[in-house]
Amino acid sequence: MSRVYNFSAGPATLPEEVLRQAQEEMLDWHGLGMSIMEVGHRGPEFQGVLEQTEADMREVLNIPANYHVLFVAGGASTQFAMVPLNLLSEENKAADYIQTGMWSQKAVQEAKKYGDINVAATTKTIDGIHTLPLQNEWHLNPKAAYVHYTPNETVDAIEFHWVPNTGPVPLVADMTSSIMSKPIDVNQYGLIYAGAQKNVGQAGITVVIVKSDLVKKALWHAPTLYTYEAHVEQKSCYNTPPTYAIYFAGLMMQWIKRQGGLKVIGERNIRKAKKLYDCIDTLSGFYVNKVDPKCRAIMNVVFSLREEALTDEFLSQATEAGLAHLRGHRAVGGCRASIYNAMPEAGVDRLVEFMTEFAKKHG
Amino acid sequence: MSRVYNFSAGPATLPEEVLRQAQEEMLDWHGLGMSIMEVGHRGPEFQGVLEQTEADMREVLNIPANYHVLFVAGGASTQFAMVPLNLLSEENKAADYIQTGMWSQKAVQEAKKYGDINVAATTKTIDGIHTLPLQNEWHLNPKAAYVHYTPNETVDAIEFHWVPNTGPVPLVADMTSSIMSKPIDVNQYGLIYAGAQKNVGQAGITVVIVKSDLVKKALWHAPTLYTYEAHVEQKSCYNTPPTYAIYFAGLMMQWIKRQGGLKVIGERNIRKAKKLYDCIDTLSGFYVNKVDPKCRAIMNVVFSLREEALTDEFLSQATEAGLAHLRGHRAVGGCRASIYNAMPEAGVDRLVEFMTEFAKKHG
Repeated sequence: MSRVYNFSAGPATLPEEVLRQAQEEMLDWHGLGMSIMEVGHRGPEFQGVLEQTEADMREVLNIPANYHVLFVAGGASTQFAMVPLNLLSEENKAADYIQTGMWSQKAVQEAKKYGDINVAATTKTIDGIHTLPLQNEWHLNPKAAYVHYTPNETVDAIEFHWVPNTGPVPLVADMTSSIMSKPIDVNQYGLIYAGAQKNVGQAGITVVIVKSDLVKKALWHAPTLYTYEAHVEQKSCYNTPPTYAIYFAGLMMQWIKRQGGLKVIGERNIRKAKKLYDCIDTLSGFYVNKVDPKCRAIMNVVFSLREEALTDEFLSQATEAGLAHLRGHRAVGGCRASIYNAMPEAGVDRLVEFMTEFAKKHG
Repeated sequence: MSRVYNFSAGPATLPEEVLRQAQEEMLDWHGLGMSIMEVGHRGPEFQGVLEQTEADMREVLNIPANYHVLFVAGGASTQFAMVPLNLLSEENKAADYIQTGMWSQKAVQEAKKYGDINVAATTKTIDGIHTLPLQNEWHLNPKAAYVHYTPNETVDAIEFHWVPNTGPVPLVADMTSSIMSKPIDVNQYGLIYAGAQKNVGQAGITVVIVKSDLVKKALWHAPTLYTYEAHVEQKSCYNTPPTYAIYFAGLMMQWIKRQGGLKVIGERNIRKAKKLYDCIDTLSGFYVNKVDPKCRAIMNVVFSLREEALTDEFLSQATEAGLAHLRGHRAVGGCRASIYNAMPEAGVDRLVEFMTEFAKKHG
């Protein structure tokens, strides 16, 4: 079968040319006579891959020298514990969280195990429309060890299009579903983390970008692999890291560079999202999106059918038309089109076409 | 370049036919029009892979129904913390450890953070020969929450060829470098764990086989992903697991079954190891192995050259001859041939041939 357009929220679609490269190199990486997944993590071959991946990531995201780039095994949920375990201290266990959806809520839950967690702001629903709290509505604690927020909530498809200013209090961002979707200014953050399975590659690894002065002794009970110190000291090789996932992230960084970098990708992403939201808004008698246009996500577009009973038919016909994995998250239902970097504009065009036809037929 | 014989200790060589299958399925898994790494972990496709992988592992290792099989992101070092965090309790923080090399020592270090750790026995060196302590020399605490040991120490290439009997105290085994190398009786263990990067597949995932009655509330400060409870309740999908590494483990289980299972593989492994040890012993004027023949490892064979200065030449000529990654662990030096399941007997024959020629030339 030929490749289909895959709108999965993550693990998500990957660029065909990256998959082809991985395929070609599977049995023999760079003439070595073995796969990169078959070499020791401390040898020059893998160390070269690790260093190049970090260097490319630094170039793509323009990461300043006073930030460490770490590759941590596991998904972003590891960071729900690692952030408080490392940024809180016996002296200061206070942290502020902005709770705007399912993922930030999970972060709050885990952090509560370790500190005094203040939910400083939450999403609001005004006339049935979900919107994000403006910063002047946040109840921040000026003595907090950090402020945690989730720039894009994947399930709810609600995104901050502005970066909070938390002054001297470090800003921590879970960028799992927005990293690499556009250029960012890393200097505005104390710590950024992101599970890789959207725009960075395979599931099973999380990228952590952390300002050096935030790396200090963790709370006593933190497992060694949950301390940033161990990862910094051992350059992400305290133990055997997920070598293939790191290699794959490296291929993705090179692909981003070949695309022209995040500026080009960011513009394309905005075009892609606009096409979908325009389609939904134009056909607003048939499709609904309940997110405030000022906070609509670029990477994930949720919508439902006004006639809910048609959802299954919509989804099954979409699948037949080669538009896969459009079902919304099990917690919210409806439909969701995740349109990460690897989703070509043609895939979005095809979806818009399909949605228009479907609405015409059933509207 | 054609494939070389790769004696890396891990990440290690993998069966060529498994790599070819992964290569073929890279862009289109089972006619789905996408890679298995591009699908959501809760969808039927990946859930099918996960269930089949577990079922095949249960079949291959003959795992009884009262044991859970878990796939945990990260390497076996995660378990150095998870085991005490889950098996100790506020009421009983005592555990016994058998310290027989670098890896068990790391396990001890991490466990000390959480409990009263008693090193009940260690390796001994008698007349320059390393040997393992017999069980009647162990100082076990009958009230310990568990006894931890490392059946095969990868760095030191020393292996228990018997299973300790700890009575009612659960036996915990770090089988990272011995799992799947021969049949075992799972009933003799309370908990078995193994990083996948030797006989199970890719780095980045650890298999945990745990008796159901040992899964209980963890110490309060355990991160959720460090509790067996969360992994059991969510069937290894508390969050996005390393899906591609699990898929790869599944391919490996199927390969083991095609080989005829662990009995056939175990016999082949013994033959492979015997050939190498026989070579070393026959050429004992030139090569040395300092491990008690009763405890020599089947998966890793360490040796040094009596004339140490020849080591680099030996290693570089071996590499030229297509025998790669024979350098010993940085902590001990010398040479090490890791001969996991995927190392064909022909690779061992070729190494024996090379070692014999090299000794003849330089002896």
